[in-house]
Amino acid sequence: MIKTDILIIGAGPTGLFTVFEAGLLKLRCHLIDALPQPGGQCSEIYPKKPIYDIPAYPEILAGDLTDKLMEQIKQFEPGFTLGERADTVEKQEDGTFIVTTNKGTKHQAPVVAIAGGLGSFEPRKPPIPNIADFEDKGVEYMIKEPELYRDKDVVIAGGGDSALDWSIFLTDVAKSVTLIHRRNEFRGALDSVDKVQELKNEGKINLITPAEVKGIVGDGKVEGALVEQKDKEPFTIKTDHFIPLFGLAPKLGPIANWGLEIEKNAIKVNNALDYQTNVPGIYAIGDVNTYPGKLKLILCGFHEATLMCQSAYQRIHPDKKYVMKYTTVGGVEGFDGTKKEAPKAVVKAIN
Amino acid sequence: MIKTDILIIGAGPTGLFTVFEAGLLKLRCHLIDALPQPGGQCSEIYPKKPIYDIPAYPEILAGDLTDKLMEQIKQFEPGFTLGERADTVEKQEDGTFIVTTNKGTKHQAPVVAIAGGLGSFEPRKPPIPNIADFEDKGVEYMIKEPELYRDKDVVIAGGGDSALDWSIFLTDVAKSVTLIHRRNEFRGALDSVDKVQELKNEGKINLITPAEVKGIVGDGKVEGALVEQKDKEPFTIKTDHFIPLFGLAPKLGPIANWGLEIEKNAIKVNNALDYQTNVPGIYAIGDVNTYPGKLKLILCGFHEATLMCQSAYQRIHPDKKYVMKYTTVGGVEGFDGTKKEAPKAVVKAIN
Ligand SMILES: Cc1cc2nc3c(=O)[nH]c(=O)nc-3n(C[C@H](O)[C@H](O)[C@H](O)COP(=O)(O)OP(=O)(O)OC[C@H]3O[C@@H](n4cnc5c(N)ncnc54)[C@H](O)[C@@H]3O)c2cc1C
Ligand SMILES: Cc1cc2nc3c(=O)[nH]c(=O)nc-3n(C[C@H](O)[C@H](O)[C@H](O)COP(=O)(O)OP(=O)(O)OC[C@H]3O[C@@H](n4cnc5c(N)ncnc54)[C@H](O)[C@@H]3O)c2cc1C
Repeated sequence: MIKTDILIIGAGPTGLFTVFEAGLLKLRCHLIDALPQPGGQCSEIYPKKPIYDIPAYPEILAGDLTDKLMEQIKQFEPGFTLGERADTVEKQEDGTFIVTTNKGTKHQAPVVAIAGGLGSFEPRKPPIPNIADFEDKGVEYMIKEPELYRDKDVVIAGGGDSALDWSIFLTDVAKSVTLIHRRNEFRGALDSVDKVQELKNEGKINLITPAEVKGIVGDGKVEGALVEQKDKEPFTIKTDHFIPLFGLAPKLGPIANWGLEIEKNAIKVNNALDYQTNVPGIYAIGDVNTYPGKLKLILCGFHEATLMCQSAYQRIHPDKKYVMKYTTVGGVEGFDGTKKEAPKAVVKAIN
Repeated sequence: MIKTDILIIGAGPTGLFTVFEAGLLKLRCHLIDALPQPGGQCSEIYPKKPIYDIPAYPEILAGDLTDKLMEQIKQFEPGFTLGERADTVEKQEDGTFIVTTNKGTKHQAPVVAIAGGLGSFEPRKPPIPNIADFEDKGVEYMIKEPELYRDKDVVIAGGGDSALDWSIFLTDVAKSVTLIHRRNEFRGALDSVDKVQELKNEGKINLITPAEVKGIVGDGKVEGALVEQKDKEPFTIKTDHFIPLFGLAPKLGPIANWGLEIEKNAIKVNNALDYQTNVPGIYAIGDVNTYPGKLKLILCGFHEATLMCQSAYQRIHPDKKYVMKYTTVGGVEGFDGTKKEAPKAVVKAIN
């Protein structure tokens, strides 16, 4: 059982910044995310694109925003359960909550902060009848641990940035990389497309287009993929892994059944106070919540997280009074023993 | 008469970011501030100190935060009335407001956003009986235009960062710089104190301590300052300017009489919707407002400004519906003709 003060569901920008604000209040956090990496929409959908409305950043790439947030919260040593979906919540007699993931991992905390964005990112799966039999047995819809592919034969399917970028990356790791796409045209960053062309010319990527994987063969694990290519007879290609990268789409999913008031696929909260849901102790912040005038913007999630942490503090420490200190004045003391602090003014005679 | 869409009172971080959010909605802004420079508390009180809780900035100097915001809003060409205090507001029959400063400058807009922080920064004045007679006739409490002192004799009083830094700066501009402080010890950044010591040793700053200016002499304008130095007879020093830099303190001031609901020296707003005050069309955002759970933090002002602009848009364009577009997707089109835009993905064949 993983225990923490604030259990955060969703490691997008809102969830990440919550760790910082909680840390200032000496509260520890643990994050659950269905994705294998932190950053939410920013890292999954548009990591290489610029955002222009982060305050005081005239421009910042979404991936860099994630990196900066990770750097900012490092002092507070957040825990992560990645690649798992929070499926159920149970309120305990002592007022705490137990949240269990689809893989059975259990987390316990007195406060749950749902920062689930548009929902848990779930892969779009290709319509291959027996694909479910091979999941985690050679079929992966996202790449969590590239080392898994060391010296293996790998077939990637897809025509967007993920398919392009992972094909490039895995040429240095896998024994062979085959990229299959149903068109000749790929859609992505220009340098990614050009790089794949180059690797194909060098024989490092085996490109099969226009084609589709229509079946998987193997005994208990993936051993081959059945390919239908235009103007050719169907053929089977030997492989250890089949990785269809057709994008991930967010689904509110199981959270919709947690007894929370839902409106327009989002969780209703008390925006006049602390972004709490109708279940005391469960908050909803960032894109996942709704209230009159709500804007699904990153900077709004930051504010909501900050106010929410104050309320969480009261819940966890009902008899303490928290006196806010500016970070500039009080510094930032990490759980890792580090302290950031402004240089003090000197008092010094001039003679 | 200066006309604009949103008249912002206060050019602190909240007021500055409002220009950006308004600009995205194609609304123009003009800012009034009592200070001679933008940045509010950040630029007046702690420009060289680090802030640690600006989201995605593990550390940023308050002065740099101001610079980044100025850069971010540049495309939207904000107007500024600096060094003047907004004193009165009058509602017009057409629903617009006219705001007049202490210097008589008039501004008209359909929406007023008060981003006044802890109030208008007002100088702490030394207790010199006739000092009011010389204000703007050689006595200045803040330095708006350094060129005013070109080849002049200048007496600065004070023992903090402002007195130190302006003494240093003016040695390159003025004919002579005299720094007077009631103690031998100065309080400020170490390098500022050391620099003044160096300039004093080189004879470029005339240091008189421990001493106080007790009177001003002159006929219609400053001609000299009467100095009392410890263990000496009082003496008069010839000067064209007397600049007492004893710090600026914020005072809510005249805004308190605008008919707005005030609580704990702050303006009550509707935080459940749009941060509007009890007077429709007048909003209050950032440190200047109050509501249940309010935190006087920079990041909260950013969120409040953003939601407020949506409401202002509705007020200004009652029959248009604004459809929000992410900056990443729609880009940012400035009033200056520039456009920021994410590089588009390519669709390109790989052969
Ligand atoms: C193309 C594009 C451009 C954008 N441009 C801008 C812009 O310019 N400015 C701006 O402010 N915003 C922009 N946005 C929106 C911005 O990305 C979102 O507002 C922001 O990501 C919301 O952050 P969040 O942390 O609330 O949620 P998300 O980023 O959506 O993160 C939520 C995370 O929670 C996880 N999750 C949800 N449910 C569960 C569960 N049950 N179990 C485990 N994990 C779960 C998800 O997998 C996800 O990783 C853009 C969005 C897109 C798609
Ligand atoms: C030493 C110190 C350290 C701090 N550290 C932090 C920190 O680490 N993190 C954080 O988030 N916050 C911190 N703060 C607080 C932060 O600076 C404020 O929250 C922020 O400046 C508020 O921004 P604002 O734009 O709302 O108001 P302000 O910055 O106060 O700006 C308001 C402006 O309005 C002007 N004004 C007011 N009334 C009038 C009028 N009638 N006419 C003309 N002009 C007017 C004032 O002159 C002023 O320039 C700190 C503050 C101080 C003093």
